[in-house]
Amino acid sequence: MTAEDSRATALPLALDAMGGDHAPGAVVNGAARALAKNADLRFLFFGDEAALLPLMQREPDVMRVSEIVHTTEKVASTDLPSVALRKATKSSMRLAIDAVKEGRASGVVSSGNTGAFMAMAKLVFRTLPGISRPAIIGMMPNKHGDVAMLDLGANVQCSARDLYDFALMGNAYARAILGRKNPAVGILNIGSEEIKGHEELREAAARIKASPVKMNFIGFCEGNDICNGQVDVIVTDGFTGNIALKTAEGTSHFMYMQVKNAITSSIFSKLGYVLARPGFKQMKRTLDPRRFNGAMLIGLNGVAIKSHGGADGKAFASAIRVAHRAVSSKMNERIIEELTIAGNQDYEESNANHDSLAHSS
Amino acid sequence: MTAEDSRATALPLALDAMGGDHAPGAVVNGAARALAKNADLRFLFFGDEAALLPLMQREPDVMRVSEIVHTTEKVASTDLPSVALRKATKSSMRLAIDAVKEGRASGVVSSGNTGAFMAMAKLVFRTLPGISRPAIIGMMPNKHGDVAMLDLGANVQCSARDLYDFALMGNAYARAILGRKNPAVGILNIGSEEIKGHEELREAAARIKASPVKMNFIGFCEGNDICNGQVDVIVTDGFTGNIALKTAEGTSHFMYMQVKNAITSSIFSKLGYVLARPGFKQMKRTLDPRRFNGAMLIGLNGVAIKSHGGADGKAFASAIRVAHRAVSSKMNERIIEELTIAGNQDYEESNANHDSLAHSS
Repeated sequence: MTAEDSRATALPLALDAMGGDHAPGAVVNGAARALAKNADLRFLFFGDEAALLPLMQREPDVMRVSEIVHTTEKVASTDLPSVALRKATKSSMRLAIDAVKEGRASGVVSSGNTGAFMAMAKLVFRTLPGISRPAIIGMMPNKHGDVAMLDLGANVQCSARDLYDFALMGNAYARAILGRKNPAVGILNIGSEEIKGHEELREAAARIKASPVKMNFIGFCEGNDICNGQVDVIVTDGFTGNIALKTAEGTSHFMYMQVKNAITSSIFSKLGYVLARPGFKQMKRTLDPRRFNGAMLIGLNGVAIKSHGGADGKAFASAIRVAHRAVSSKMNERIIEELTIAGNQDYEESNANHDSLAHSS
Repeated sequence: MTAEDSRATALPLALDAMGGDHAPGAVVNGAARALAKNADLRFLFFGDEAALLPLMQREPDVMRVSEIVHTTEKVASTDLPSVALRKATKSSMRLAIDAVKEGRASGVVSSGNTGAFMAMAKLVFRTLPGISRPAIIGMMPNKHGDVAMLDLGANVQCSARDLYDFALMGNAYARAILGRKNPAVGILNIGSEEIKGHEELREAAARIKASPVKMNFIGFCEGNDICNGQVDVIVTDGFTGNIALKTAEGTSHFMYMQVKNAITSSIFSKLGYVLARPGFKQMKRTLDPRRFNGAMLIGLNGVAIKSHGGADGKAFASAIRVAHRAVSSKMNERIIEELTIAGNQDYEESNANHDSLAHSS
């Protein structure tokens, strides 16, 4: 019996209304946008009531399905996780997490300090039985829609066992969140014949192949495979994943600017852009990073979704959607089922050590 | 006194005419294109004379400044480096490298098997005094022109000392090849407050800051900084560099396809493209990956440039240009000067071990 079992999808989502650069406005606006697309949603807002109430009164639909839990403290974006853990036990972030643990909410969404959020969520939720390290999993656009990648930065170094766990969890995520029936899972590596990458990667691949969990494992993939639509789940350590994610984001932005320069280079090209605009608008919609906002802290015994610190309302609505899908698809239960099939041994002991040290440096 | 000193820029460049998917045609065509832009060039072609001669007869300018050294063997793209090292001592690749060592050529360019090329060049040239590991350094487009990145795949794991050496060499490269007066050098890392990346990265940063070599060191940079024009030289290990390079390439290609789809989505957008075409053509020229072809095996006591296996004539001409600049700017002498200032200790002993094992797995 896990904490997950006792939570119904009818429970509200807990929202850290004070996290991120545009809080609380973006949080209220995001809730309104998400609600407009899914009338089943309900919310628990954790934040300063004096700031929240006027915003929510302008969104009567949100008001109708929400409660405010007044909080006076908040985690600063500059707080070290260790400091936030000790000091901010009454913060909007911490209380939103506690609400999930206590069965008053189905999942938590925050745009606040990533390190503090991970440290608190890990302390409160603990990891799923058999998982030693939670990871951050996010989505990026690719040729056929979306690709999921983990870890995006929670674990700088990973063992073969960690990567194997990531593959199991990523597989469950792609089915639950991306709606893939038989997701293709690959391990990020470098392809040169002469150098076949780190030993852990080869060992992780061997573990996946030998696993009793049926998985559409395609083996190693390379950086250029992230966007090409051949892979649905990219498994990597948090250092490499973070570099790859940010390189892809930076390259996309650079290319956007190049296209913009090309379009505005002459009066003719500007005129041409007017004619081609519907196509470009569609492209912009497809690639809009806000559509891909909402990274799950996967491997925890509770649904926690990290929204980008700079998220606006539209982006925050995407993060709410990820949280709702994770809850309604009972994703963590699916992961537990797969871990049971895989026969993963329990990491309780090592968890106890991890928790006390987690992200405290 | 190094091998470099005895080589004048008037010496020809040695070309492996049998390496790569489009050899020998792309090699001859590349030489013709490079020569058209720089009349000082001279070439030594290593390859099958029967295949080369008819191609060269169609390029009388190339014929006039070149010699053919007939070879019967070649390194296959599928050969393991260890196999190529033992077997292919009479190959076009190996003989082209030997020509540089023997003072008959100023540098070598090959589109052949990367692992074999690195292993042979390392064995023949040895590393520069004070350098333990050569790296692969290449160029990518960024906001202000080009950015150099190393290592792109020669060394999967790197010590702080290796990264420090890469920074020194990258600094010299950016001045010699990219023409930067005071290049900004950064170490690729992940930025999250809670996780500050590998210990080696912090130690490498400390070494650079404490170095007697004056360098415009900007500290850590992230994946999204590769293209943003704030950094001229990105220092990283070969695993991360390879992932970042291929992620950027894949994302660029993906974005191209998105733009193409946007442009061809309707009759109006197609018409718009006709009007905007000059701008897009300029963009395509700016970002053409062939412009960035030619990765230097840096840290060797001899100029060796690796061209992409799929390089066509235009791409191969870029690699020739890199070789010529490295030679004419006396880049390796500059690196040696900096290493002397830095007081790098000699790695002769560890080199001896490295060489015998290099890329043999």
